[in-house]
Amino acid sequence: MPQRYDIAIIGTGPAGISAAITAAVRGKTILLLGPAALSEKLSRAERIENYPGLPAISGADFARALSAHLGSLGIRITDARVGTVYAMGDWFGIQAGETMYEASSVILACGVAQGKPLPGEEAFLGRGVSYCATCDARLYRGKTVAVLAYCAEAAKEAEFLATVCARVLYFPVVRAPLPQAENLEVIRELPRAIAGEKKADAVLTDAGAREADGIFVLRDAVLPERLVPGLATEGERVAVDLSMRTNLPGLFACGDAAGRPYQYVKAAGQGNTAALSAVEYLSKR
Amino acid sequence: MPQRYDIAIIGTGPAGISAAITAAVRGKTILLLGPAALSEKLSRAERIENYPGLPAISGADFARALSAHLGSLGIRITDARVGTVYAMGDWFGIQAGETMYEASSVILACGVAQGKPLPGEEAFLGRGVSYCATCDARLYRGKTVAVLAYCAEAAKEAEFLATVCARVLYFPVVRAPLPQAENLEVIRELPRAIAGEKKADAVLTDAGAREADGIFVLRDAVLPERLVPGLATEGERVAVDLSMRTNLPGLFACGDAAGRPYQYVKAAGQGNTAALSAVEYLSKR
Repeated sequence: MPQRYDIAIIGTGPAGISAAITAAVRGKTILLLGPAALSEKLSRAERIENYPGLPAISGADFARALSAHLGSLGIRITDARVGTVYAMGDWFGIQAGETMYEASSVILACGVAQGKPLPGEEAFLGRGVSYCATCDARLYRGKTVAVLAYCAEAAKEAEFLATVCARVLYFPVVRAPLPQAENLEVIRELPRAIAGEKKADAVLTDAGAREADGIFVLRDAVLPERLVPGLATEGERVAVDLSMRTNLPGLFACGDAAGRPYQYVKAAGQGNTAALSAVEYLSKR
Repeated sequence: MPQRYDIAIIGTGPAGISAAITAAVRGKTILLLGPAALSEKLSRAERIENYPGLPAISGADFARALSAHLGSLGIRITDARVGTVYAMGDWFGIQAGETMYEASSVILACGVAQGKPLPGEEAFLGRGVSYCATCDARLYRGKTVAVLAYCAEAAKEAEFLATVCARVLYFPVVRAPLPQAENLEVIRELPRAIAGEKKADAVLTDAGAREADGIFVLRDAVLPERLVPGLATEGERVAVDLSMRTNLPGLFACGDAAGRPYQYVKAAGQGNTAALSAVEYLSKR
């Protein structure tokens, strides 16, 4: 039987980290899932002017301060990309790659997908378009895949795909270290759309169509309702109340995932509230 | 004509300071009203474990970090105790002592009154019971007044009362420096109730009744609906939405005043949100 954590926290930006800190201080067992390098967006921030107590701090220094805080409480990050969260009644199953974690409550702090989906992306989801290399790589064994890299993490997933697939076309949308593999080609063209007939078979750029059997769209965040079946949303945000409760008992949301403003201290504040609401939920069961 | 500020912020705890920082960064003119020594409750905190980025910081050090942040942005605190906020339509009048400030929007970050009112306190309000020494001292010229000191600030107000009234009985409920005046007597008894017939005329303690013509109850925070006529509340908290809007257009609330949990980072996060909502309100007028 896998360990059942009190609280699983999905996301390692200020909201998730704040939730983890407060949950740990309150003595709960926690599973903190997300990029171990913390949220990329955070480290890339040039200067944060309005996080009270840390005037004019760089994103990199802020990320270091948060890491040090986690370290001081003995909190470790489990480096994983969550595919789906299943509400099972009085517990949750959290699928990340080939691992299924279990927790009594869940805090979503997974950020918000920036920008709109590409034309064709949603229509072909599950038919040639995937958000998870670990989950779907085997569908494309020996074939050609395209990786649309909207986050730095995508490089690692592309290298994994290169071990399974015949050829990887890598579109680096954000600036980040590039993946390395003999059968991987970096294509410096901006993806404009995903095309196909019954299934997706090409990435369209200003330079033309790049054919691929499978197309992996890798972003920092996925749409919350895709992450958690049955979750109520309002536009792109998870619907929450002031206590950060969602429509699913035991599941809480905070930070950018819970709506604007997209601000570090607002995210940290909501993470704190979500953690205390989860603690209260656990005590009432 | 008095200056009309873009945003008046009432309260100098983490919520008010965070609101002031974000409003200043967004280029608004602000009036930050409250104890210049920051919130007392804050400085008294022994150790704060869960303010992300500042692990295990003492309340005094946290207060210093917030002060330094205000200083780095050139934000000054106007040391004043606000009596009433009047919603005038498209602006607000903010009465503090004998001064009336004006602002286009207001952020309430005035904390929450701890504990219940004393028996008799509410019944005799305006009939011998007052929350504001500056406002009502003249009613008791040459008479005896009692000061129930639930906050450190009360000392200063008691000294002012001593210049106007014949005699001041000072009940130090919280530990703080005591006021000094020849006609001021410190009474180390815990107030249990306020008694009287048509009007309040005595403070009841375990040792008996202490007679006074006027009784000043001085707390860190007053009830929000008493501070702002017409403000909608839910129990002891101001009713707000996720954007920290209240029922009064242009008036926002955050921090402890907006409800539980009573946590520093939650307060700071809501202050940030309130400031950005005020900025949006100003831009839409």
